[in-house]
Amino acid sequence: MKTYLDCIPCFFKQSIEACKMIGLSDDKIKSILDKVALHLPEIKMLCSPPEMGGIIHRIIREQTNNPDPYKELKEKSNEIALTIYPDLKRIIQNSENRFLKAIEIAIAGNIIDYGAIFDLDLNKEIRFLLDSEEEKMKKEDSKYFTYTDFIESLKNAKTLLYLADNAGEIVFDRILIEEIIALYPAIHIYCAVRGYPVINDCTVVDAVSAGIDRFVTVISNGLDIPGTIVKSCSEEFRNIWNQSDLIISKGQGNFESLSVTKKNIFFMFIAKCQVLTRYIGCNVRDIILCRNGK
Amino acid sequence: MKTYLDCIPCFFKQSIEACKMIGLSDDKIKSILDKVALHLPEIKMLCSPPEMGGIIHRIIREQTNNPDPYKELKEKSNEIALTIYPDLKRIIQNSENRFLKAIEIAIAGNIIDYGAIFDLDLNKEIRFLLDSEEEKMKKEDSKYFTYTDFIESLKNAKTLLYLADNAGEIVFDRILIEEIIALYPAIHIYCAVRGYPVINDCTVVDAVSAGIDRFVTVISNGLDIPGTIVKSCSEEFRNIWNQSDLIISKGQGNFESLSVTKKNIFFMFIAKCQVLTRYIGCNVRDIILCRNGK
Repeated sequence: MKTYLDCIPCFFKQSIEACKMIGLSDDKIKSILDKVALHLPEIKMLCSPPEMGGIIHRIIREQTNNPDPYKELKEKSNEIALTIYPDLKRIIQNSENRFLKAIEIAIAGNIIDYGAIFDLDLNKEIRFLLDSEEEKMKKEDSKYFTYTDFIESLKNAKTLLYLADNAGEIVFDRILIEEIIALYPAIHIYCAVRGYPVINDCTVVDAVSAGIDRFVTVISNGLDIPGTIVKSCSEEFRNIWNQSDLIISKGQGNFESLSVTKKNIFFMFIAKCQVLTRYIGCNVRDIILCRNGK
Repeated sequence: MKTYLDCIPCFFKQSIEACKMIGLSDDKIKSILDKVALHLPEIKMLCSPPEMGGIIHRIIREQTNNPDPYKELKEKSNEIALTIYPDLKRIIQNSENRFLKAIEIAIAGNIIDYGAIFDLDLNKEIRFLLDSEEEKMKKEDSKYFTYTDFIESLKNAKTLLYLADNAGEIVFDRILIEEIIALYPAIHIYCAVRGYPVINDCTVVDAVSAGIDRFVTVISNGLDIPGTIVKSCSEEFRNIWNQSDLIISKGQGNFESLSVTKKNIFFMFIAKCQVLTRYIGCNVRDIILCRNGK
């Protein structure tokens, strides 16, 4: 997905909210916005929005002399998610279709996105998702929830690359991954996370603290942007990308950067902005499971 | 009023909408946004938002090689407003308090603001204002409609400087000015307009086409920004500013640039953004008549 004109005011809005989240003063935020602005000409319309996201958060890290300003937030997200992990497992066990439920839970975890939802009350939001999950979740195949197609791909997969998105969410991903392993034990699963801290995106340390390394091989994609630009990723990542016959891509940033990539990819995310919903034709907060190809 | 952080994404949103309004391509708009971005560091938080507005529209004029991209829009606005001028006069004549009604009509004309309301259907909007004006308009004094205070100031005024805002709106201003002249024929009235084209703001040519020069002395403020920075205005403007004992300031841009100026000013405008409504404590689309001093 390319950058749309409407993304540009949003880059500045995201910068402001990201800076506020780590408690910067208005003057400091303005000086960061000035630096973000100077980089705008580098972003061509054909770039995907996460490329500018990478620039923004690189500037925030430099200007705050803090290599990981969202460290505490990420730890807290994992901690809260791990607290409700037993509840999630219970929901799965009590479901008529536990695999479908695991997919729904993994997508629901994508609500933990401090890059797009600035006023997230995590505890409340997750409890709400759990309490009302019967109503909120998709039950059937639709244009934006291609469950049957996904299951078919999974049946034939030998090597699955799971592109994680955010800390906290990774615990929800673990639920799905455990179900995949139980159903398809022969599939080799890699879970790729960001190479360096960027917003609340999951890095190796966050993946390990969520305990996902007990089930899959965790790899770094080598990048510090909130998305996946394959050609810029580490060699290790690109090798695994090339040998994978199925990719699960979590989150809007991974969708934005991979939506037109030719590969067997299924995207799972909650739609979070109007530029994206116009692009794919859904509504904000819709729960999406879809193939690439647009 | 200073620039708030939330104004910054809005500067880019305004730039996009202004460019779309004159039919520029997405690539051209992106190149204009890149240039706008390079000027962001010049705008300190203590600047008033119209100063950035000035920069944005200077860039649009340069990049389109068009000294007045909104010329047709302004002509059309005056034309539509002049068409309904007889209706406005009839409304005044049939009102219990014709002076209050004239104020309300002048403020209602401030809806014609293509710098803040991008999807304005002028004909429809003005007809709506007229049809429902009995309900929509303020009837009594309130914190944001200090009618009695304004009348007292007017009674004592010798020289009134009327700061106009937009083309089209100037016809609504004419209605009020005609009423002021009828009630207080001894007041000398100057009407100041922008020195150069900027968005759909009124310039001398637009004021003359609205016929306001038949009633008052029209002067240029010498500026090309959608507001009034007195120290940057022409000497002629500053002389008249200094000798005026009452100033009527139309529009949000004039409010933003003059709200803390020490002078006997009454502001008349429709509140159009949340940064402003937070600043003065009103709601978006409220009709405001208030003194300076915050």
